[in-house]
Amino acid sequence: MSSEDEKVIEHVEETLLAYCRQQGLFKSGDRVIAACSGGADSMALLLFLLRRRRDLEIEVLATHVNHGIRGVNAIADANFVTAFCRKNGVELFLYDAVKEGVQIPQQPSEEWARGLRYGWFDQLAVQEEAFIATAHTMSDQVETILFRMARGTGVHGMAGIPPRRGYYIRPCLCLTRGETEAYCTALGQNYVQDETNAQDTYARNRIRHDAIPALQYANPAAEVAIARLCRQMRDLDQWLTGEAAALLQAATVEKGYDISVLRKAEGPVLDAALHSLISPVRDAEEKYITLLRFLLQRGEGALQLTPEVTYKVKDGVLLRLTPRGIRPPPAPPQPFGEGQFFLPGGYFVEFRRVKYEEFLKNQPIFKKDLNCCADCAKIQKNLQLRTRLPGDFFRPAGRHVRKTLKKYYNELGIPQDERPLLPLLADGSEVLWLWGSGFAEGVAPDSYTNEVWMVRTEKAEEDE
Amino acid sequence: MSSEDEKVIEHVEETLLAYCRQQGLFKSGDRVIAACSGGADSMALLLFLLRRRRDLEIEVLATHVNHGIRGVNAIADANFVTAFCRKNGVELFLYDAVKEGVQIPQQPSEEWARGLRYGWFDQLAVQEEAFIATAHTMSDQVETILFRMARGTGVHGMAGIPPRRGYYIRPCLCLTRGETEAYCTALGQNYVQDETNAQDTYARNRIRHDAIPALQYANPAAEVAIARLCRQMRDLDQWLTGEAAALLQAATVEKGYDISVLRKAEGPVLDAALHSLISPVRDAEEKYITLLRFLLQRGEGALQLTPEVTYKVKDGVLLRLTPRGIRPPPAPPQPFGEGQFFLPGGYFVEFRRVKYEEFLKNQPIFKKDLNCCADCAKIQKNLQLRTRLPGDFFRPAGRHVRKTLKKYYNELGIPQDERPLLPLLADGSEVLWLWGSGFAEGVAPDSYTNEVWMVRTEKAEEDE
Repeated sequence: MSSEDEKVIEHVEETLLAYCRQQGLFKSGDRVIAACSGGADSMALLLFLLRRRRDLEIEVLATHVNHGIRGVNAIADANFVTAFCRKNGVELFLYDAVKEGVQIPQQPSEEWARGLRYGWFDQLAVQEEAFIATAHTMSDQVETILFRMARGTGVHGMAGIPPRRGYYIRPCLCLTRGETEAYCTALGQNYVQDETNAQDTYARNRIRHDAIPALQYANPAAEVAIARLCRQMRDLDQWLTGEAAALLQAATVEKGYDISVLRKAEGPVLDAALHSLISPVRDAEEKYITLLRFLLQRGEGALQLTPEVTYKVKDGVLLRLTPRGIRPPPAPPQPFGEGQFFLPGGYFVEFRRVKYEEFLKNQPIFKKDLNCCADCAKIQKNLQLRTRLPGDFFRPAGRHVRKTLKKYYNELGIPQDERPLLPLLADGSEVLWLWGSGFAEGVAPDSYTNEVWMVRTEKAEEDE
Repeated sequence: MSSEDEKVIEHVEETLLAYCRQQGLFKSGDRVIAACSGGADSMALLLFLLRRRRDLEIEVLATHVNHGIRGVNAIADANFVTAFCRKNGVELFLYDAVKEGVQIPQQPSEEWARGLRYGWFDQLAVQEEAFIATAHTMSDQVETILFRMARGTGVHGMAGIPPRRGYYIRPCLCLTRGETEAYCTALGQNYVQDETNAQDTYARNRIRHDAIPALQYANPAAEVAIARLCRQMRDLDQWLTGEAAALLQAATVEKGYDISVLRKAEGPVLDAALHSLISPVRDAEEKYITLLRFLLQRGEGALQLTPEVTYKVKDGVLLRLTPRGIRPPPAPPQPFGEGQFFLPGGYFVEFRRVKYEEFLKNQPIFKKDLNCCADCAKIQKNLQLRTRLPGDFFRPAGRHVRKTLKKYYNELGIPQDERPLLPLLADGSEVLWLWGSGFAEGVAPDSYTNEVWMVRTEKAEEDE
């Protein structure tokens, strides 16, 4: 290996390690399944994970999807990935749509293929209790941003692909496509070429081949500049989301939101709040935000978002109507901290940080497994108070199992109607406290505990 | 004229009128000088202003600049614009760089030409007491955004070209380049082709000819979508600027800013505050914001921005050092309202809204021209409390003249060092209240006055 190659390898791996650390992508002991098409990006991802698995303290596995739409080329790709994994002792989960009996459409869209792929990844993540690492690069990020800008987007869309969502992890967002190729080349690793050509993909190709080189003429490091903008937008979006949550919190009344409070809010915060009311229901296009803002200004009328959900203003309150009656919209995520939270649907949660001794003294009756409190030292991450998201999982205290929240709710027999409203605390997709079930496995106080988080809950009676 | 042409004309003019109204670009009686190169965009601008000057209640003039760098073509353009103005009875201010004895560089850059042009516009605006309308279109806006994204930008840069800055007004930001061309064609108006080719212009040309068509392949209305994003970013930027101003206000101590207050702020607001500290000194690149944030975190050290300005943390206070000693940075703009404002440099301003009768009763001594109060009904626009900006002008009460703030400060003999700190209230570039001079001509109470804005000022003694 030439010293030039060594330099490339070191540069790429140090960049990736720094990014993983900064974004908190991996924890010691995580099982990580690399989604591997066989292209340069995903080969770079898999190579990096394998070469640095000791530094990251993770277990590395892989998966490959044959969508059943590229015939013999797809089989060659599957064989390529299989051979690599066999040679490197990596457990590989192959998914073959045809063998699985999937009905392949006549003209499969990129959207269809994506749905198939992610359906399988979701299943695999739960089955293997693992995270899925995908190889999206900074170049994909920049293409996504430009594509969204063309189609119409706001701050939220400009935040781009997040480095982590539920059990999905994207370590390569810090690398350009050129860098993943250079890394493979420096390691003497060949890779396959992807040649899909669906409609959306073709629009993306024009962005890749025409738009980005034009921007690179203005600045050769244009991709890096746009990726940085994207990170700024993500920070801004998260902060706005927090402000919006605080606004909705302040406006919460029993059945909905007091419109006089909402009306006092300033433009961008109100828009972010309205976005968080619409986004669980449908794509929060600017049109719907404008219509909902208009509804608030008028102080009367209704806006039907889908056959299932209508927003209506009645007696100064913004209500959410469904065919099953009035259901308030779920609470938007907000940062976890000490305080009292009045949440939609009459849910009330209070969090307090207290000395463990004091907690023991003042707690008249112990819940048998102490799951109404958690050791502060064990949950120091950036938690959010929110409701369920796809991909959430929970480890109920004392049960030694990890379940998707969906399965766990099924087990508890919680009605579908109530599920969107139940408050929880989560670190990414890992639920650390759940309404009615308390804190998760592994965060209970022990003999070293100094301070604990205490939680108190109440629910207003429904008067329907 | 065909009915198709009539439709185009009506659509374009209604779009322009709505935009002018919505953005408050013109006031009755304004003198407006259209900057006219002779190209489609600026011919469309001039045609619109002429055809609808009665609706807008404005006087329309024009100006054309021959930069002295395109020889015979430039002379043809000047003749074209001259002929148009003569035929339509429009007063034209021709500027010919060669005739004015300007030294033309060997390889004049686009930057140089821009400087020449805007230097002349500035002079003309003051000399003619007029606004300058430039023909920037939505297409220019989108090119600017993409260009800035490539070079590296944040929320502020994503806000694009503002529809109004000082005495500059851009009514055509609501039209695509295609629409200005269609409007000229529908009116049977020919126009000249511009063919500059400086370096930056060439990068812009690649964005225009390669990047934008690629985005239009994803969505034919991509320009409209990006212009809308741009407006959202402008709202967001303005709101963040307000939050940042409130933060700096809260952190203000006599000589600078209390770093313990700044440190408590959240990322985007702190960044906007740091941006407002850096931008009067030099281009507020992300690098400097990061360095200044780092300085705050460390709580010691210094950051030299230019040979003239250094920021330093001493005893928990962020100071601004210049060769002439410690000078606090100017106050960032904030929305005008009732309240007390402690501003950098020891300036204190209090605004109160009171019944005129009460004011007359409680005011023990009248200033001879009553310029410590203004009729509320006469200043209802969106005012900002800020310090001077280039292009500001002021009409001192009782003097019947309009002056640039620069000239007025010269007249008053205010030291250069103090000028950046003097508080003022402004509606765009029109200063309505100025530290030491009171309210401007035309806003004094009269016999119909019901309520007045009262202002009280104090200045802390300097202990240097």
